[in-house]
Amino acid sequence: MRIAYAVPGPMSKGPMGAAEVTRREKLLNSWAFEGTQVEVRDVPTGPASIESAYEEALSIPPTLDLLMRLEDEGFDAAIIGCFGDPGLEAARELVSMPVVGPCESSMLLAATLGHKFSVLTLFDSLIAGQEYLAVKAGVREKLASVRATGIPVLELMTDIKATKSRLVEVSTQCVEQDRADSVIFGCMTMSFLDMADEISASVGVPFLNAGKAALKQAETLVSMGLSHSKTAFATPPKVSDGQTVADLKVG
Amino acid sequence: MRIAYAVPGPMSKGPMGAAEVTRREKLLNSWAFEGTQVEVRDVPTGPASIESAYEEALSIPPTLDLLMRLEDEGFDAAIIGCFGDPGLEAARELVSMPVVGPCESSMLLAATLGHKFSVLTLFDSLIAGQEYLAVKAGVREKLASVRATGIPVLELMTDIKATKSRLVEVSTQCVEQDRADSVIFGCMTMSFLDMADEISASVGVPFLNAGKAALKQAETLVSMGLSHSKTAFATPPKVSDGQTVADLKVG
Amino acid sequence: MRIAYAVPGPMSKGPMGAAEVTRREKLLNSWAFEGTQVEVRDVPTGPASIESAYEEALSIPPTLDLLMRLEDEGFDAAIIGCFGDPGLEAARELVSMPVVGPCESSMLLAATLGHKFSVLTLFDSLIAGQEYLAVKAGVREKLASVRATGIPVLELMTDIKATKSRLVEVSTQCVEQDRADSVIFGCMTMSFLDMADEISASVGVPFLNAGKAALKQAETLVSMGLSHSKTAFATPPKVSDGQTVADLKVG
Amino acid sequence: MRIAYAVPGPMSKGPMGAAEVTRREKLLNSWAFEGTQVEVRDVPTGPASIESAYEEALSIPPTLDLLMRLEDEGFDAAIIGCFGDPGLEAARELVSMPVVGPCESSMLLAATLGHKFSVLTLFDSLIAGQEYLAVKAGVREKLASVRATGIPVLELMTDIKATKSRLVEVSTQCVEQDRADSVIFGCMTMSFLDMADEISASVGVPFLNAGKAALKQAETLVSMGLSHSKTAFATPPKVSDGQTVADLKVG
Amino acid sequence: MRIAYAVPGPMSKGPMGAAEVTRREKLLNSWAFEGTQVEVRDVPTGPASIESAYEEALSIPPTLDLLMRLEDEGFDAAIIGCFGDPGLEAARELVSMPVVGPCESSMLLAATLGHKFSVLTLFDSLIAGQEYLAVKAGVREKLASVRATGIPVLELMTDIKATKSRLVEVSTQCVEQDRADSVIFGCMTMSFLDMADEISASVGVPFLNAGKAALKQAETLVSMGLSHSKTAFATPPKVSDGQTVADLKVG
Amino acid sequence: MRIAYAVPGPMSKGPMGAAEVTRREKLLNSWAFEGTQVEVRDVPTGPASIESAYEEALSIPPTLDLLMRLEDEGFDAAIIGCFGDPGLEAARELVSMPVVGPCESSMLLAATLGHKFSVLTLFDSLIAGQEYLAVKAGVREKLASVRATGIPVLELMTDIKATKSRLVEVSTQCVEQDRADSVIFGCMTMSFLDMADEISASVGVPFLNAGKAALKQAETLVSMGLSHSKTAFATPPKVSDGQTVADLKVG
Repeated sequence: MRIAYAVPGPMSKGPMGAAEVTRREKLLNSWAFEGTQVEVRDVPTGPASIESAYEEALSIPPTLDLLMRLEDEGFDAAIIGCFGDPGLEAARELVSMPVVGPCESSMLLAATLGHKFSVLTLFDSLIAGQEYLAVKAGVREKLASVRATGIPVLELMTDIKATKSRLVEVSTQCVEQDRADSVIFGCMTMSFLDMADEISASVGVPFLNAGKAALKQAETLVSMGLSHSKTAFATPPKVSDGQTVADLKVG
Repeated sequence: MRIAYAVPGPMSKGPMGAAEVTRREKLLNSWAFEGTQVEVRDVPTGPASIESAYEEALSIPPTLDLLMRLEDEGFDAAIIGCFGDPGLEAARELVSMPVVGPCESSMLLAATLGHKFSVLTLFDSLIAGQEYLAVKAGVREKLASVRATGIPVLELMTDIKATKSRLVEVSTQCVEQDRADSVIFGCMTMSFLDMADEISASVGVPFLNAGKAALKQAETLVSMGLSHSKTAFATPPKVSDGQTVADLKVG
Repeated sequence: MRIAYAVPGPMSKGPMGAAEVTRREKLLNSWAFEGTQVEVRDVPTGPASIESAYEEALSIPPTLDLLMRLEDEGFDAAIIGCFGDPGLEAARELVSMPVVGPCESSMLLAATLGHKFSVLTLFDSLIAGQEYLAVKAGVREKLASVRATGIPVLELMTDIKATKSRLVEVSTQCVEQDRADSVIFGCMTMSFLDMADEISASVGVPFLNAGKAALKQAETLVSMGLSHSKTAFATPPKVSDGQTVADLKVG
Repeated sequence: MRIAYAVPGPMSKGPMGAAEVTRREKLLNSWAFEGTQVEVRDVPTGPASIESAYEEALSIPPTLDLLMRLEDEGFDAAIIGCFGDPGLEAARELVSMPVVGPCESSMLLAATLGHKFSVLTLFDSLIAGQEYLAVKAGVREKLASVRATGIPVLELMTDIKATKSRLVEVSTQCVEQDRADSVIFGCMTMSFLDMADEISASVGVPFLNAGKAALKQAETLVSMGLSHSKTAFATPPKVSDGQTVADLKVG
Repeated sequence: MRIAYAVPGPMSKGPMGAAEVTRREKLLNSWAFEGTQVEVRDVPTGPASIESAYEEALSIPPTLDLLMRLEDEGFDAAIIGCFGDPGLEAARELVSMPVVGPCESSMLLAATLGHKFSVLTLFDSLIAGQEYLAVKAGVREKLASVRATGIPVLELMTDIKATKSRLVEVSTQCVEQDRADSVIFGCMTMSFLDMADEISASVGVPFLNAGKAALKQAETLVSMGLSHSKTAFATPPKVSDGQTVADLKVG
Repeated sequence: MRIAYAVPGPMSKGPMGAAEVTRREKLLNSWAFEGTQVEVRDVPTGPASIESAYEEALSIPPTLDLLMRLEDEGFDAAIIGCFGDPGLEAARELVSMPVVGPCESSMLLAATLGHKFSVLTLFDSLIAGQEYLAVKAGVREKLASVRATGIPVLELMTDIKATKSRLVEVSTQCVEQDRADSVIFGCMTMSFLDMADEISASVGVPFLNAGKAALKQAETLVSMGLSHSKTAFATPPKVSDGQTVADLKVG
């Protein structure tokens, strides 16, 4: 099967650059089941990274355009490559293939690993948003806590050792103070550090790489022949009535 | 005080046209407290009406641009003129004046009128979205039901008598089957039909015009010198660190 | 419009005296929209202040008598001047004008200011009662915490500086430990200290004066032509069947 | 042990009269464990029956006076003889003996009989109040429904056969439509019809007589040497500081 | 009435031995209402004590066999003598007499004593299980916390003074940090230390002996002629269709 | 990877026989990713099918024995082959490999397909149990309904056409009356009818085969190197202290 990983920002033009796009594609393919091919694509314009509701809003229209193109190109499923799952509902309205969100898929996977899980996020200002995503995923009752590391996306890879030590520190609080049985890396750049195993060894509970979790959910859905329900994510009424998606934008 | 009513679609270019913009501005001013001036503005591009998550996503970036301009022009508060409250969190991150959502404000007002309230929406596909907005507003426990009329936004004004009769029919189900103590018009075009009093007289419970409710919340906040909490709706971190809002978009 | 502020205790006969009644009336009028007149009235007998369920129970029958008289006198709405909203449901059964509770109205207003809010109360013994009021208001999910200052009502005005310093201290715990985005003064005497702005400046989040919030809700309801739903707050069945309210009391 | 059953209305002066007081006392004693003596007392003034929040408010102050006298007389526990549990928290603040509410005690007993229970009430206007009592009892999750019979308290005994047939009819809806596993008679006069067994035989699920349930909870608490927690139902602060309960009322 | 207390482990063969069986029987009879006789029985095989889901699973089949025999012997009700309430639903499917669980009955009793209660358990690994039992009992909203003492069942009686001091220490955390208004001994061996009164005197809130609470619930149900609802705990369908319980096991 | 599917009843000795064991193994292998081998094993004694809490209790001890043996045999993960997930927590305490429950895994998968899902079960008496499993899975908020088909396990394969028609009928109620966006076959025999695609085509929403969902979750966990958290499912304390699992059973 062919799975697209759609980065909702112009990563190849940003500070991480095309090399990071390539690195992530390689990692994703190394995590995949035999027979799965993953391609990473980014959008032409949008935010350098998504750390606020504003940047999320900016990222959505180009990401939806990209997802429609990817379906036309014959992909079997797509992953939206940001832990805020930007544009997830809208994407499911527009395409028929499964569209997977790293936040939703990793929360649903963490739900099976124990009674409660925590999410590591970037800033305190993102905590409430993550809590709403847990409501949307349906697993708010299992969310022990969301805790912020205070490290911006674009600095996570600057000093890997310092990042790791901070992730261990905050995760330990999740386990000891919030009774988390597992911990999710709540940012794709954090997930693509690919340090779940070593951090898990330090902290003593399972850690979830959200990129892997999203990939596995995509592979699961394609393998089972399932996609999102059209009663939940309906085609826009004007399109059902004969307009094209392009017609929906005026002016 | 000066309050802006920002229409998140290019209404003046659409089928309703500039006359409708003017009509709404007149109505809003007629509902205001003495000393309040309301101006209606629309965005240059976006969806003709918002009936899906996709159209909502399209509407947000131009609406946020408009709201920043309105704050620069000296408005004391702004209302986002769509019942889905598109872009509400992002707007509150970007400006200091209060930004009011018709859905949130009318739900919070309905909460005081009785034990439960219902919302009239357009299509079944919008019900779950309205339920999430009730979670965000914090009053999910008071939401008796969301029921759809089946009439698209752009046809609500075509046959006013048929619209009214359908609104009465669906509202009566809310009251009799779902135990709603009040009913909200869950669409601005529905609200601007300005028929709350006559429909209330037919159905026997209070009806809430979401345009009025939003205006009153805006007036209340300005009058009390309150605005949204910056711990909840933080300035984007990159802007706090010295970038401009315009810098946040790459490519 | 004419709005009555009904104090559910004989304030003019108590330690605060008639001067405090006058002071509050002046403040309320200074907070009102143009065209609103507020009159403060107290009941002839009842508790000196309300700090227990017992004192609340004592306060309700005379307050209900007063509210019925106020409606007869032509007031457009009434506020019950105690943060426990004593007798709110019963009052709404007996009169047609809107009856507003400072707790309910300030909680519903705080709900729009952020994700969570806290309430400052007097004693630990009042915390659970405040939590039930949040359930009744429908916004329990948004209540970050109720914290007690430990200062009795009748001592709040004794040493204003000490009171302020204690309010800042406890509010800071609400913000830092409970993640409150705003804070409500959960007592009318606390609210009428009229220190929301200066305490807000110290603590860094919005503070809600419950007297102002109640007044704005009353003005909003009158301005919108709304009152409480009779399906939620029904006329007592014996009165619907022809008895007078006075007939309901035997012996 | 000696248990008082305090009727929060002047039943002996009302339409039911002293004979009904005697009849209830006899029934209560017949339900008691060996060694328990029950005395029924009513208040001198108050509502003929409690069918609204207003009548409940009227009933509370005299009931609290009665409960304090009953403790002085040496009773080991008291039951408040109305299904709305009027004044329950205030009573627990004022006395040290256990004070039992028929609603709370029967809901907690119903919780063990199955997954869900229903409550039969008098009028639709009382449903929301019963739902709040389930929140206070802590068992809202187990409340399948509250359904109204439409028969006023004072007419329940007029045509016993019609009453029974209506109770069977509404209970059957609770079981078949709301999946109730047991049903509570949500009114003391309904409970004192003493028809739980025969109605249970017709409907096929257990029925709870709220008078019996309250008596058993009172006997249980006395037998275990337990009373309500003073951290939950604190002595009024002014009384802790040296005033008498009588001092709390001014004017 | 005759009540059986069924120990779901072979206590008489274990380290506590037959003397402990006799001691518990004596205590139970001393707690009973006049006219109640309690007999303690244990199962022939199973775990020495129940401290994991695995040991609970082992205990259930022999306990269900015992309960069916006890009903045949004419007992009026049975208590499952373990705070995890092992096999409670299955038992209620198989017998007609009331079957009482110490956890469920003490949680429902604690619910009336205040706003919140805590449970003392043995190990951290049992906390989540206790929380699910509170969901099943329907009172999750009243559970302030479950805290572990860290003392294994079979060591609770080794050094009574140390045990008591640890129980006081952990309970005080429940009251001061979690706002518990009462505390339940969440283990039968803890309950049969019979120290509720002295620990309550130290900590200042009511303590619940789960053995007493279970006994009182059993006596209450028998006295009221109630048993569990067959809509909730249905006879196994194959038995309703004519097989015996013994037939249900193949191989 | 090698995955075991453990049937918690002696299927090969029952009415379905060894042929059904073989048929299911073949199906499971046909659903697996390349490189996965599935073996089906049943237990030597236990219930013919699980339709009550009693039969579930019988099934657990032999199933736990089997799972420990399977781990010793080198399996990478195991599925408990019954939709009630019998013994799931206990199994996770005893082994280190992932143990997957079909109910939990299919509920977590359904959670991503839409806002709400329904479960088809056998009898009304199983509905509450399924609801508790949704609580345990953490997705109770997404459960639209559990509806019973009324067909016993052992008759599901008797008249496939009648079964299918009944499944379509009940599922349609889930979609139309309960707003389910997807439907789970809440019984393994129902799932192994392998009719998800054709029933989905009739009803118009996605259907989940619980056997497939469990297999995919097992493959996902093994592929990600994850297993259940030992903070949630701790090794029995006596085993941590040096006893063997076999030692835990006395008598």
